[in-house]
Amino acid sequence: MKSIKFDYSNSLLIKESELKKLSKQLVKLDNLVKTKRGAGAEFLGWYDLPINISSKEINQICAVAEEIRKNSDAFVCIGIGGSYLGAKAVIEAMCGVFNLLTHKPQIFFAGNNISGRYLSELLNILQSKKNIYVNVISKSGTTTEPAIAFRIVQNLIEKKYKKNSQKYIIATTDEKKGALRKMADTAGWRSFIIPEDVGGRFSVLTAVGLLPIAVAGIDIKKILKGASDMKKILDTAAPEKNIAMQYAAARYLLYSKYNKAIEILVNYNPELHYIAEWWKQLYGESEGKQGKALYPASCDFTTDLHSMGQWIQDGVRNIFETVLEIEKTNLDLKIPFAENDLDELNYIAGKQVDYVNSKAMQGTIEAHTDGNVPNLKISLPELNEYYLGQLLYFFERACAISGYLLEVNPFDQPGVEAYKKNMFRLLGKK
Amino acid sequence: MKSIKFDYSNSLLIKESELKKLSKQLVKLDNLVKTKRGAGAEFLGWYDLPINISSKEINQICAVAEEIRKNSDAFVCIGIGGSYLGAKAVIEAMCGVFNLLTHKPQIFFAGNNISGRYLSELLNILQSKKNIYVNVISKSGTTTEPAIAFRIVQNLIEKKYKKNSQKYIIATTDEKKGALRKMADTAGWRSFIIPEDVGGRFSVLTAVGLLPIAVAGIDIKKILKGASDMKKILDTAAPEKNIAMQYAAARYLLYSKYNKAIEILVNYNPELHYIAEWWKQLYGESEGKQGKALYPASCDFTTDLHSMGQWIQDGVRNIFETVLEIEKTNLDLKIPFAENDLDELNYIAGKQVDYVNSKAMQGTIEAHTDGNVPNLKISLPELNEYYLGQLLYFFERACAISGYLLEVNPFDQPGVEAYKKNMFRLLGKK
Repeated sequence: MKSIKFDYSNSLLIKESELKKLSKQLVKLDNLVKTKRGAGAEFLGWYDLPINISSKEINQICAVAEEIRKNSDAFVCIGIGGSYLGAKAVIEAMCGVFNLLTHKPQIFFAGNNISGRYLSELLNILQSKKNIYVNVISKSGTTTEPAIAFRIVQNLIEKKYKKNSQKYIIATTDEKKGALRKMADTAGWRSFIIPEDVGGRFSVLTAVGLLPIAVAGIDIKKILKGASDMKKILDTAAPEKNIAMQYAAARYLLYSKYNKAIEILVNYNPELHYIAEWWKQLYGESEGKQGKALYPASCDFTTDLHSMGQWIQDGVRNIFETVLEIEKTNLDLKIPFAENDLDELNYIAGKQVDYVNSKAMQGTIEAHTDGNVPNLKISLPELNEYYLGQLLYFFERACAISGYLLEVNPFDQPGVEAYKKNMFRLLGKK
Repeated sequence: MKSIKFDYSNSLLIKESELKKLSKQLVKLDNLVKTKRGAGAEFLGWYDLPINISSKEINQICAVAEEIRKNSDAFVCIGIGGSYLGAKAVIEAMCGVFNLLTHKPQIFFAGNNISGRYLSELLNILQSKKNIYVNVISKSGTTTEPAIAFRIVQNLIEKKYKKNSQKYIIATTDEKKGALRKMADTAGWRSFIIPEDVGGRFSVLTAVGLLPIAVAGIDIKKILKGASDMKKILDTAAPEKNIAMQYAAARYLLYSKYNKAIEILVNYNPELHYIAEWWKQLYGESEGKQGKALYPASCDFTTDLHSMGQWIQDGVRNIFETVLEIEKTNLDLKIPFAENDLDELNYIAGKQVDYVNSKAMQGTIEAHTDGNVPNLKISLPELNEYYLGQLLYFFERACAISGYLLEVNPFDQPGVEAYKKNMFRLLGKK
């Protein structure tokens, strides 16, 4: 089967022999994932998620999504961190950066900040809508950001629909525990389950990500097929052909042997911006502990070549880039011809815009490697559900191996509690 | 007069005595700016821009903006790097993150990527509009990204308006030289001038930024007043009270003495996201040369506390944060009371959302400094035109001093050419 590729031939530093040397360790660490015996094993549910998810659940998700698509002009997705980033990333990748203008229903994200202005303005917009569904996503139901947003949107829904309001609220939460589970059961809202053994940043292929993605009209079965195919590939591929092992090993070597401090995830397609935001949580939260790990940064090119390009070309040599390439784009247009050619563009008139983009990518990789910035590359044959599914699973699997290489528990996040504790104290919470 | 503040009391490392030691040098370097005798002096036009800009030009900008506001439902702003980031940053800060949904006219940015899909989708949207104005912004007129986008939008405008199309195209470009100047003069388009001595990343207070900002209904006179007041403050303040000198010195010490590699510009107000993007170009492109400089990164909090928070709390201690604080917000709402209080939020019911946000900020600064992440803070009394004007000028002035401290020319960008050269070769440009 066709699959995404990983290429480290422009890494400048990494030798095949170095990767080979790591082979045994990589197999061992990947085995800890497969057999669920490594650190954080209680959160390894994501490993076989694309296979374990039942068709009953998929069909339920699709049915509710279809109802929402048919009956509403606004859908509010309430969640923070892993409870919105995966959905946002896939929806923007598939529906484009103008999706808020062009998509029906409009899909809004909330509960991922504590901004009064954001919520006021959103409320204003929602008040002009005919029919609004809300999906509140939280394992506990007490996380401050989504809890505040949900109280506000819930109020709106209950004022609007009165006795019928329960139809318009869907909860995605723990099967048994927690405030949101209690709220859903008490009020009779429909609900989907966040498996106990799947952490937030690994939850895009549960109902957490799949329901909003399906509401956007995206085929979640194809996403799951891509993910399970990628699982199959990675379950059997030998280290030298195992792209998850190779990516994990490459970034480990660049970090620990070659002293790189920052990995910049680069795209040349604006709609991939939030894939990088999702990736930042995945790697940053999995690895950033015990004083370790690459800082996960991102750039949108060529856009940011005109802001961060100078730094990347000539600044401190403590960075490397991982480029997300889309080999074949679907929606394109031609560069028009101009009589006078004052802008000197006629030499590419008649060419597709994305052809120029591909040459910009090629030229940039050359320029940055000339400037001693190692470049890794992950290539998707096309930007569609299937390859996105592959990509998501690939990144998750590589992240687990990468975390184990660093000797951290990739599945906890003890540091996230620190600000909350202080905030609760300052707010006088008992 | 009331002004923005800079606070390094949570920097953990920087001592007053260290800043004092730098005083003489700071005064000397700032003098190179004032007297235009330092490296890159030919690009120091931004220094007295807020005072030098004529009321005639301001009035012309306002008049054209008023015409566009009255007569159009879509305004396309074509430019890349410094030719869009300043406008985008100010427009989003003032009009909010939902501005594309709520603002009339809708303001679109294009020419800042080479994406066929982006341009196709934009074209589709524009085809449904009644009246479209375009502002094409480029010093040369031959930069690939905006030139491609402009050919496409120009075609649309000329098909739509035929003989009257010249009314709907406004060029912002060099006074005399370059392709876009020639195109504008030949076609009879109205035009505004990019002063020869102002580089792209310092151009937000020229017509480059001011026209799109005015089209968004934002009072550019107040922005300029803020900038010129900040100039006055910085022109006379002694080093220990000079916030530009202090910010420049603080980041210089954190970089060169305390080995920090990354500065994260942090906001707690989602509408400030693009202020950070503008800031990244300003500092990244000004300083990232000769193998030097802090890597400028950014986070939106509390959003990214649930993605990058773990890394920041417990990862490599090679970072510091600069927090943008808005002391008093204008648009807010109350957290509703809930009978059952299952989500345990009643302890803050009745409070304003932004009150909780301010405690989140306070708690986060505490948590991160506990985690050995130095925190600097820049505070705006309010988010309005006047203080944004102060902020823009403050960042520019501090950037010049900061670049001189690093012993680089803060006003060139030789590294930006590298990818273009390769791209032109690959595209077969002669």
